[in-house]
Amino acid sequence: MSIPSPSLPTLADIEQAAARIAPYIHTTPVLSSERINSIAQCSLSFKCENLQKVGAFKARGATNAVMLLSDEQAAKGVATHSSGNHGAALAMAARTRGIPAYIVMPENAPEVKKQAVAAYGAEVLYCESTLAGREQLLAEVVTATGAHFVPPYDHHDTIRGQGTVALEILDQCDGNIPDVVIAPLGGGGLLAGVATVIKAKAPGCKIIGAEPMGADDAYQSFISGQRVTDQVPNTICDGLRSVLGKINYEVITRDVDDILRVTDEQTIAAMQLIWTRMKLVVEASAAVTLAAVLANKERFAGQNVTLILSGGNVDIERLPW
Amino acid sequence: MSIPSPSLPTLADIEQAAARIAPYIHTTPVLSSERINSIAQCSLSFKCENLQKVGAFKARGATNAVMLLSDEQAAKGVATHSSGNHGAALAMAARTRGIPAYIVMPENAPEVKKQAVAAYGAEVLYCESTLAGREQLLAEVVTATGAHFVPPYDHHDTIRGQGTVALEILDQCDGNIPDVVIAPLGGGGLLAGVATVIKAKAPGCKIIGAEPMGADDAYQSFISGQRVTDQVPNTICDGLRSVLGKINYEVITRDVDDILRVTDEQTIAAMQLIWTRMKLVVEASAAVTLAAVLANKERFAGQNVTLILSGGNVDIERLPW
Repeated sequence: MSIPSPSLPTLADIEQAAARIAPYIHTTPVLSSERINSIAQCSLSFKCENLQKVGAFKARGATNAVMLLSDEQAAKGVATHSSGNHGAALAMAARTRGIPAYIVMPENAPEVKKQAVAAYGAEVLYCESTLAGREQLLAEVVTATGAHFVPPYDHHDTIRGQGTVALEILDQCDGNIPDVVIAPLGGGGLLAGVATVIKAKAPGCKIIGAEPMGADDAYQSFISGQRVTDQVPNTICDGLRSVLGKINYEVITRDVDDILRVTDEQTIAAMQLIWTRMKLVVEASAAVTLAAVLANKERFAGQNVTLILSGGNVDIERLPW
Repeated sequence: MSIPSPSLPTLADIEQAAARIAPYIHTTPVLSSERINSIAQCSLSFKCENLQKVGAFKARGATNAVMLLSDEQAAKGVATHSSGNHGAALAMAARTRGIPAYIVMPENAPEVKKQAVAAYGAEVLYCESTLAGREQLLAEVVTATGAHFVPPYDHHDTIRGQGTVALEILDQCDGNIPDVVIAPLGGGGLLAGVATVIKAKAPGCKIIGAEPMGADDAYQSFISGQRVTDQVPNTICDGLRSVLGKINYEVITRDVDDILRVTDEQTIAAMQLIWTRMKLVVEASAAVTLAAVLANKERFAGQNVTLILSGGNVDIERLPW
């Protein structure tokens, strides 16, 4: 008898998460640009998670995970390893609940990200910048403190939180259901959560992941039918270098219609267009969505397309142009 | 018998302008940042005119002026000279009404601004980069075409349009009237329109202009009681280099509580804070408002302060840091 795999997240799970996190996160605006529509030759709606707390959708999943803890679990705090937005999100969620957070970060993480985590009152612990180094220090911290480990993307609580973005997209479209929703694809937590909601509530809407060519493990997994875990990423999209999560792979295989890959050059051009025309600071990992549309104009011509701008945490003194 | 000076704009004028331009402009969002509040030690609301059409509040005044023309006047088109946002705004408004626009621009204007004006279908005419050069070519264009000259800031129709920002601020504050509204101060059209509305509808609210130290003609005019028109500006705030307008000087003398000056260094630091924490692209001329608060923290401590982020048109390949 095989051990049953844990059930995948459902629409009901994500609706419960939305109610749970509503007091602590922003309902982010949906913006558009006539100029970009005219370039793309379709009607684009940008869901602005760069304007979310901590500047990224990660606030949703981390808040959901922290609010689900029992008082007894919570008292010992939460921990994770992260070089990016999940660390800041978990630090913020822990501060909201009034519990300790221990964030393991590589020594060479950008100064701006170290400061962001520390500003939320988390204890930052520095490790070598290898996965083994991170995991070892995290294990030591968890053992020493009894803190609860909140994984960045391959976990039900996280996925359920990220999926709440899609509930807002459907609420905010005034009945004008998009033909397509495109989300950035790294570890896959955002895409898995969003796909679960869209397929349940708007089955006619296509759901597409956008991935950098230099970190296309999800695309390779999608076409081969087997999860690729040994790719060495090479992309400027620092939020999309993660290995596709196991649960996320299952959801994506079931619910996602396609994965589109873009070059870093296409991503930088799309990023510049969003900064210049929409006056929004977005990170490269967010701009892959627009890059995917602009690289496939015929496919989306005349359609209503919603793009998830996943985050805006950029070192503005080191821009990729 | 002296010729009576034209009556100054009134609240009723500006309310009529708001109804006139409503179909053609955005109601821009008001955003806030806990992190910036904690740095500033007051409660800041940012009115995001950088997210306005053409990326600046100038869309309001230009649209009001164009929509006020008779069909006969409109048929011959509109004209102005501008190196910045007013040119794009007038081009956009003319396109909306389906009439020609002739925009005189200095040859050395930034490429991005030339392209923006041309993208709205305006005819761009290049002149030498002196005021005399601009005015001469504009006069020739007006004579040759019969186009109607729409001035950038020192004109009733323009001021009435710009003042509509303040009506939105009062609508969007949910009855929580700000203690202070701060607007950038260049030619003075925005500040004059905003001050007219605030003093009529919320007389307890202070209204303050923020001006670069290197273009402080309005401050010098304000304290000396005489309009200074011969200053040579020296500031990175390209939107605030204009000479204070005559009508605007009258309104500002009557209605504005104070003018605060900031250095370009303070402005750049405030601009970086808005980009990094709020994920908004704003131009230096918009960031003077936050710079004025941060340079005068004790004065604003604990207050509700609304800052007008006037525009977001920046050459992202030539940032001032």
